[in-house]
Amino acid sequence: MKKILTGVKPTGDQMHLGNLLGAVLPFKRLAEKNDAAIFIADLHALTSVKNAADLKRNTHEMALTYFSIFGIDTPVHIFRQSDIPLIPKLNWILNNVTPYSLMLRAHSFKDALQKQKILEKSLFPKIVFDMEKKCLKAGISDKAIIFEKTQEAYDNLYGNAPNLNMWIFNYPILMAADILAYDTDIVPVGADQKQHLEMTRDIAKAFNKTYKTDIFKLPSEYIEKDVSILPGIDGRKMSKSYDNFIGIFDDDKTLKKKVMSIVTDSKGFDDIKDPETCNVFALIKTFATPDRTESIRAKYLVPGYGYGHAKLELLEILTEYLRPYHDARAMLEKHPELIEQKLQEGARIMNERIEAKMEEVKEVVGL
Amino acid sequence: MKKILTGVKPTGDQMHLGNLLGAVLPFKRLAEKNDAAIFIADLHALTSVKNAADLKRNTHEMALTYFSIFGIDTPVHIFRQSDIPLIPKLNWILNNVTPYSLMLRAHSFKDALQKQKILEKSLFPKIVFDMEKKCLKAGISDKAIIFEKTQEAYDNLYGNAPNLNMWIFNYPILMAADILAYDTDIVPVGADQKQHLEMTRDIAKAFNKTYKTDIFKLPSEYIEKDVSILPGIDGRKMSKSYDNFIGIFDDDKTLKKKVMSIVTDSKGFDDIKDPETCNVFALIKTFATPDRTESIRAKYLVPGYGYGHAKLELLEILTEYLRPYHDARAMLEKHPELIEQKLQEGARIMNERIEAKMEEVKEVVGL
Repeated sequence: MKKILTGVKPTGDQMHLGNLLGAVLPFKRLAEKNDAAIFIADLHALTSVKNAADLKRNTHEMALTYFSIFGIDTPVHIFRQSDIPLIPKLNWILNNVTPYSLMLRAHSFKDALQKQKILEKSLFPKIVFDMEKKCLKAGISDKAIIFEKTQEAYDNLYGNAPNLNMWIFNYPILMAADILAYDTDIVPVGADQKQHLEMTRDIAKAFNKTYKTDIFKLPSEYIEKDVSILPGIDGRKMSKSYDNFIGIFDDDKTLKKKVMSIVTDSKGFDDIKDPETCNVFALIKTFATPDRTESIRAKYLVPGYGYGHAKLELLEILTEYLRPYHDARAMLEKHPELIEQKLQEGARIMNERIEAKMEEVKEVVGL
Repeated sequence: MKKILTGVKPTGDQMHLGNLLGAVLPFKRLAEKNDAAIFIADLHALTSVKNAADLKRNTHEMALTYFSIFGIDTPVHIFRQSDIPLIPKLNWILNNVTPYSLMLRAHSFKDALQKQKILEKSLFPKIVFDMEKKCLKAGISDKAIIFEKTQEAYDNLYGNAPNLNMWIFNYPILMAADILAYDTDIVPVGADQKQHLEMTRDIAKAFNKTYKTDIFKLPSEYIEKDVSILPGIDGRKMSKSYDNFIGIFDDDKTLKKKVMSIVTDSKGFDDIKDPETCNVFALIKTFATPDRTESIRAKYLVPGYGYGHAKLELLEILTEYLRPYHDARAMLEKHPELIEQKLQEGARIMNERIEAKMEEVKEVVGL
């Protein structure tokens, strides 16, 4: 029985079939024989959700989504990150053993910095130009003063409402705190998070080495064997950023609209079709029973079966597949107090764990 | 009645007369008509004190020192930073509105980075040389592999036990949390901390602007009007780094040894001496009553009074001056429970304040 942990950021994005199959259900399977926990990373979401009502709604929506999928009686501990008061304290303690040089190596930071630099390059000249005009008008020609005023103008525009805030630099340390707090054995990660988990191990090692201890367990990563890529309605990989996804809680009308608009080739009703290159069939074979999949495959290979037919079958299959989640959600929407109760219970269990761990940490560092 | 706050880092340094006159007593005077608090910044000290026993001892010593000076019944709230659980949480929340660009501008960070770069430059060539030799011996001549191995070796040596850890980059944000948590009006700062207080205001403004609120008060700085510089025993400014200081809790023997070794010119017993250029007299006039100062000044101007005499008088004056602090300390050393009790009381009051403030913050950000 291993301790498994994952975090989900309540950014307000809807969960779609790609998320469900690629991350959520694999985690659910992994959780079955283990001691698993999911935290709703609201402290991480602060970087992008700058509105109280949005953050509250996103957090609730995320909890609702996960409890609808895992069931309200799930043994998985689902909790809000901000309900664990000691996480930010552990984060700070880890800061003191985390090399500055380590943080500079983070791909996520380097990418963000690069984007910011491109943005600055495109904006700065205009600000310089405007400020020069303004200064000359006011009779100021001293280059140093103009430069200073330009910087000030830039800071006013972008400095205090930055695209790049300190979250981007520091979040791998908070992530390390999230993971190390509970003696986590395994963290399922996507390719983009692999480096951050390495950083978690580096930080744990640095702490253990500095204080000649072994209180922090080094977590292992778990990478789900590559499931076949699920196509979105435009045929590219289903993804939020392509806006081509089918949400798991799309209502009937939306679901129908999306399914009917899946891109196919232009073969007609009486043409023989290739199921293996068809986006509709790719979804059918993912969600239908093997028997039904084979029966539909057969229909593709004889005339008289159009993409419209296939789409209607897919609609039926998806509706059926998603029904338990929709039903669970409908029940929970009527009983939000159940969700709050379970979140509190999750937090209670995880707080017990971090409190025990932090007693060790405090002893070791001398706080 | 203003809220005044200062923090002191328990690094294990002894308090000396220069600290007392330059910072501690001015704060004590300022505190008299105001609502003042002093926190022992143990969360900041983690960056340099990497041993539990040391940190505990330093923290206790600092509390003992301050209560000896302020009196155990002082109305000033003296408390341990780590006894305020919400400070690291506020620190994290502030991270999300703090521009990365702002942090890059901190002098303290730039200085530390500069020093680190000099250090790296001096160490890296040796590591490269050693690794090249080692690789060639092992039959590895691929430059890329050698470079990678060198980096690894460097990381092993310096990366995980860094001179430069993330404290140095992030501490102005924690400092902002320390200050903003209690609606602080005034922070007494030395020249080296002036920029950090500006950063606190920048971070407060960024938060207020981002969330369209005014919940964070912008603190003002208080810079003590330049007191005349106190000379150390070698005649340079009294300072820990010159190791020329007189500790306020030096025992009789140490105090005598230090006073007798104060540097003077070589004028003899019967020469007429200039009190204004004499280090001994500079200390006398700082700590003696005006009457006694004038009587000693008169002795400098006639033959028959040597520096030895002046030093013995200074010793007497300092012993007298420091006696109340020594007595208070002796009493508190017998009753450490009084200190713990007062620290707890200080923490209770400050926790009430931050809890109220954090309710507002949570409401505003949506946690």
